[in-house]
Amino acid sequence: MTAAKEQPSQKANPPQQDEDLGGVSPPQRNWKGIIIALLVILAVCSLITMSVILLTPADNQAGSDTKLTVEDLFKAEFIVHDPEAKWINGKSALFHQLFLYIFPRSVTFKATKYSISPDMKHALFGYDVKEVRTVFCIVEAWELDPPEVQNSRLQHAAWGMHGQQLVYIFENNIYYQSDVKSNALRLTSSGKEGVVFNGIADWLYEEEILQSHLTHWWSPDGERLAFLVINDSIVPKMDLPAFTGATYPKGKQYPYPKAGQPNPVVKLFVVNLYGPTHTLELTPPDNLKNKEHYVVMVKWVSKTKAAVRWMNRPQNVSILTVCDTTTGACSKRHEETAEAWISHQNQRPVFSKDGSKFFLTVPVKQGGRGEFHHIGMFTTHVSQGGSNYGKIKVFVYCRYFLSTEYSTRGRQLFSRSTVDLLPQRCLTCELSKAHCTFFSAEFSSNHQNVILSCKGKSVMNVQLPLKIYYPPDFSESKHYGLLLMVDGAPGSQAVSDRFHLDWDSVLVSSDNVIIVRLDGRGSGFRGQRILQEIHRRLGTVEVQDQIAALEYMLELPFIDRTRIGVFGQGYGGYITLMMLQSTGSLFKCAVSMSPVTDFRLYASAFSERYLGMPLRDGSQYQETAVGAEKALSQQLNFWTKCSKCSLFIISFFLTANIHFQHTAELIKSLVKVGANYTMQIYPDEGHCLSQTSVQHLFATLTSFFRECLQEPMLPLAEDEEEDEE
Amino acid sequence: MTAAKEQPSQKANPPQQDEDLGGVSPPQRNWKGIIIALLVILAVCSLITMSVILLTPADNQAGSDTKLTVEDLFKAEFIVHDPEAKWINGKSALFHQLFLYIFPRSVTFKATKYSISPDMKHALFGYDVKEVRTVFCIVEAWELDPPEVQNSRLQHAAWGMHGQQLVYIFENNIYYQSDVKSNALRLTSSGKEGVVFNGIADWLYEEEILQSHLTHWWSPDGERLAFLVINDSIVPKMDLPAFTGATYPKGKQYPYPKAGQPNPVVKLFVVNLYGPTHTLELTPPDNLKNKEHYVVMVKWVSKTKAAVRWMNRPQNVSILTVCDTTTGACSKRHEETAEAWISHQNQRPVFSKDGSKFFLTVPVKQGGRGEFHHIGMFTTHVSQGGSNYGKIKVFVYCRYFLSTEYSTRGRQLFSRSTVDLLPQRCLTCELSKAHCTFFSAEFSSNHQNVILSCKGKSVMNVQLPLKIYYPPDFSESKHYGLLLMVDGAPGSQAVSDRFHLDWDSVLVSSDNVIIVRLDGRGSGFRGQRILQEIHRRLGTVEVQDQIAALEYMLELPFIDRTRIGVFGQGYGGYITLMMLQSTGSLFKCAVSMSPVTDFRLYASAFSERYLGMPLRDGSQYQETAVGAEKALSQQLNFWTKCSKCSLFIISFFLTANIHFQHTAELIKSLVKVGANYTMQIYPDEGHCLSQTSVQHLFATLTSFFRECLQEPMLPLAEDEEEDEE
Repeated sequence: MTAAKEQPSQKANPPQQDEDLGGVSPPQRNWKGIIIALLVILAVCSLITMSVILLTPADNQAGSDTKLTVEDLFKAEFIVHDPEAKWINGKSALFHQLFLYIFPRSVTFKATKYSISPDMKHALFGYDVKEVRTVFCIVEAWELDPPEVQNSRLQHAAWGMHGQQLVYIFENNIYYQSDVKSNALRLTSSGKEGVVFNGIADWLYEEEILQSHLTHWWSPDGERLAFLVINDSIVPKMDLPAFTGATYPKGKQYPYPKAGQPNPVVKLFVVNLYGPTHTLELTPPDNLKNKEHYVVMVKWVSKTKAAVRWMNRPQNVSILTVCDTTTGACSKRHEETAEAWISHQNQRPVFSKDGSKFFLTVPVKQGGRGEFHHIGMFTTHVSQGGSNYGKIKVFVYCRYFLSTEYSTRGRQLFSRSTVDLLPQRCLTCELSKAHCTFFSAEFSSNHQNVILSCKGKSVMNVQLPLKIYYPPDFSESKHYGLLLMVDGAPGSQAVSDRFHLDWDSVLVSSDNVIIVRLDGRGSGFRGQRILQEIHRRLGTVEVQDQIAALEYMLELPFIDRTRIGVFGQGYGGYITLMMLQSTGSLFKCAVSMSPVTDFRLYASAFSERYLGMPLRDGSQYQETAVGAEKALSQQLNFWTKCSKCSLFIISFFLTANIHFQHTAELIKSLVKVGANYTMQIYPDEGHCLSQTSVQHLFATLTSFFRECLQEPMLPLAEDEEEDEE
Repeated sequence: MTAAKEQPSQKANPPQQDEDLGGVSPPQRNWKGIIIALLVILAVCSLITMSVILLTPADNQAGSDTKLTVEDLFKAEFIVHDPEAKWINGKSALFHQLFLYIFPRSVTFKATKYSISPDMKHALFGYDVKEVRTVFCIVEAWELDPPEVQNSRLQHAAWGMHGQQLVYIFENNIYYQSDVKSNALRLTSSGKEGVVFNGIADWLYEEEILQSHLTHWWSPDGERLAFLVINDSIVPKMDLPAFTGATYPKGKQYPYPKAGQPNPVVKLFVVNLYGPTHTLELTPPDNLKNKEHYVVMVKWVSKTKAAVRWMNRPQNVSILTVCDTTTGACSKRHEETAEAWISHQNQRPVFSKDGSKFFLTVPVKQGGRGEFHHIGMFTTHVSQGGSNYGKIKVFVYCRYFLSTEYSTRGRQLFSRSTVDLLPQRCLTCELSKAHCTFFSAEFSSNHQNVILSCKGKSVMNVQLPLKIYYPPDFSESKHYGLLLMVDGAPGSQAVSDRFHLDWDSVLVSSDNVIIVRLDGRGSGFRGQRILQEIHRRLGTVEVQDQIAALEYMLELPFIDRTRIGVFGQGYGGYITLMMLQSTGSLFKCAVSMSPVTDFRLYASAFSERYLGMPLRDGSQYQETAVGAEKALSQQLNFWTKCSKCSLFIISFFLTANIHFQHTAELIKSLVKVGANYTMQIYPDEGHCLSQTSVQHLFATLTSFFRECLQEPMLPLAEDEEEDEE
């Protein structure tokens, strides 16, 4: 529901590696009563403490005697102490580590993944990420091993809604057990690896549509299970080659629809689990029935009714329906159309107990700044407008919500009654005085309690969407090298109060580098107009804004104009390259990591959202590709040929969302125009780098920028003087 | 027949890309009469002229005012003017470019590949490398299109021995036409792409065994055709991934036996083409019949008899047989065993007219320097010893041969009668006075004429196997950076009189870098002992010798010890890495291009020749792998972490002999130990780089070494002073 979904994420796993014991999906499960009491458990992470040493002007004195190194980042005392709090039946459980001792076997396991059954009598427990097959029941253990499958990998296992209901997935088929000792019932049989996915997502749905690898949802009474059948048989397959680890390393293939290519066909079913199993398809609204479409949200609103949101392939029409799962009929409750694209695509409406009303955030015009998302209350159509500014996440029939109301950089929890007209109230603002302005919240299933996590504090007064990190002993009379960190993915937010500690912190702390981040056009949480400025022109306005930010920085007297670097990853890697193409001469060095270089080669759902379906001549895509315009690529060529400049490319072969293909096409263009570059590759690694590789990567990045941005050896008489050779 | 076969060559094409109109294989075809006259046609290439500006001490004055640049290397005036002379029926034809005008179609083609039929009436002519299907007969043209194949790529086409006999290959099957208008006769049907190869080589035979993609041989009268059937069905397949050029780039697979893996099974057949076709297998000698073996040479010695050389898989026993192609029986004529491995594996014996005697070079003990290859005359067994030193190639019943007799660095053509006992006579030594000491020779089919090509001149007096290239204005009172160019492939020769002009010449000419090459142990043309020193210890003695050469150079007063670089490619890339592992501190910078890093991952025929079949524990292979010994890899780690040092790796994804796998495994080790490196990759390119990529590569290499080896900016007070940062 956050805009983070809208960027080519580097963080999600490829479907195959991704296992999760999932567990009971918490807050939206049952809707009993109006909430009376609120118990706030503050899981104040060690982040707070760490943020004190965050290197900002305010911290000048504090941090000046200890300098951060890359090695520090991997030390035990620098690892975030996350209590991993999670709700179990309305009571909070704080587990640091869970050890399970299996009595008759006399074995002790460290539970990295576990899930307690609703009757609190059993635990589903993963003892090997690749082999999650055991249910531990105090002194008994069963393996999940249905007769239909042999030597197959368990893809998912979780408890149902009550008792010992179990659902799990093998070979893309869903299995059900009414209790831990009953026989496995296979609910689907069409599953086929890499082709038909039942109850589990293909790459596109996991990464770009649902942001989850699970595509099945329990009814609140556990009698029914809704699930998607995603058929990828017409989706072209992409190769992910392998190079190491065997005499003949074997790559793999998986369906990946690129812009304009055939998409997976999706159908939504509900299976009745009590009595003889019975499966029914929920039919899409008439105007989407015979067109390509996505299912972007499924949520049960009663024992037999489910809210389903459908969206057309161009992503400018979205229809919210409520489906009767006893007949399969879906009736339209809300339709949203957008000139650019539907944002907040898979937000979950919050329904009233009787299902007659529901809340949804909808874009509302707000003066000259365009539309902002507000909470609206709907019966059949819109009835009552919400309050101002963007809402992030709505909890519990709209009494509680996270909002950017006080600052677009922060996140605060608010409450407001739907019964009376009392004004909304900030529940966390008091806590903010204890240096916390960025919260996340997770409600217990009975909505009585909430876990609040502090993710960072405000350290700035500037009202510009700019975040500047100053070295500990900063002085305006000195000259500093500057590193511009570019993200710029549509809907992302680089400037927030969220705490941040990464390799670039080392440069600030130990190498006297000033770092700057900007949220320009295309960024999220600042209104629809700013976000949608990038529509059909990716790589243009973001570049202009980043350059504007840089020019602002260059006016500052303490910035050395001859020592400017830029870093971007993924979408940011793309913006980095586009910046070099337009004004390479500003920069001394640049790192583009896993860049997108051509949106024709990126996922359909992402590319088409911003650029539309490829035209016959592909012109709108060609214009956005790196190296597309001759004049621009010559600029890049010119820049990389300057003797003191350097372009450094970092890539991973196994990145499943941004294929190495992007880098390969880039290199081909660079070679063609004779441009210089160096690169580093992490073979047989994707975005989930091994610890060793992360350490190597951090060391590489810091030493590259250290060398580039360090003070010249000889005394610097003038700003313009270029005495480094 | 030269030792060049014994290195992991970067030059041969992958089988699929490799087309050739082949044509009539010239000198050995018919054996009519004793040769009377010799007409020497000297195709003195522009090489000679260019070698005058070769930058050696002798050329100090000449070259000092014009400095060579990378751009120069690609200018028209620097491209070798090769007359591409080739023999047609004993008359020489010199074609620069051949244009064919097709009368009725009014089309003009530039004939990049062509072949004249033995009756001189037709030309086989390739008009597209991928589609070579047309026979042009003045005003008529036929396409080679047998009914059995559709939309298939022609793999090879050539004239037979007389008239308009044609043989060509589609889908790994051999087709025959008695004349251009007759129907195509399919001679084999077992052909299957990537599995069974008829008359054409699989990767192993092309690259490591025969050094030719053709595996069929005409009998002198054109009545019979001998051909190999190479069955790769049990050979594991290697993936060559693709990354560019398509939305979903597809890699390919091809059989590639790595060390110790199943080899292709080879059989030799002869088909009788006159009358009803009849195919007969030629049986291997008894002691190889039921063992894995190679066919390393096939040569017709009369209308019905063919000489065949067989070799066991360990490559230490080779048997020369003469086979009666009417019965299929082969009788042993000569057996060679070797303690290390059989060298000169596929040399072709030269038979007397009646077939009773033949010449063969065999290793002969020569005092303390071990064995040298000499020409021996055999009847049934050895009968008459030859002269001293290594012979390179024997022409025409041993009257003519190229020899290293006068200098191991040169190649001269000699003649000697087998009838009388007159001493041998050097035919080219007179020409040597005109500054040529390195010749190649190609005799016409009637042995009346020879095309001599001058490939270089002697420019040295040193007797060490060391070649030093000095900058044009060299002065002993200055200090120079040094670049060590490493090859070191078994049997190769880096130090010869052959003319050499490459990217490294630019460094010598324009950047005042001294370049040195060494032939150490393992190199060819200097006797079997030196060559076989590497047996079972690849990567040890070559490294010692290269370091010794370097230490010799470092004693010279004009070498700056702080500016030493090393470059190696393929096998040389391997030696480069092994040198860094043992004494990295000697070097400031290193480039390892397409390195071999583990011989378990290299071709069976190569790896097993030098290291034997892998033992159960693979120990002999592990020891030779880069990064194998912990202490050594720490040395490499230590070296790459020194702030002024740099390791640069260059790789190509499509190299079919040295897979990218080697580089990937290397990078994994480097990341593991935290070693620094940078790299450059040429995606979707193999060893046959595009012109653009070659230019980019040359520019990259020269600028990398220029920066590393340039004189420090500040005055250098002491040799040891390290004032560059």
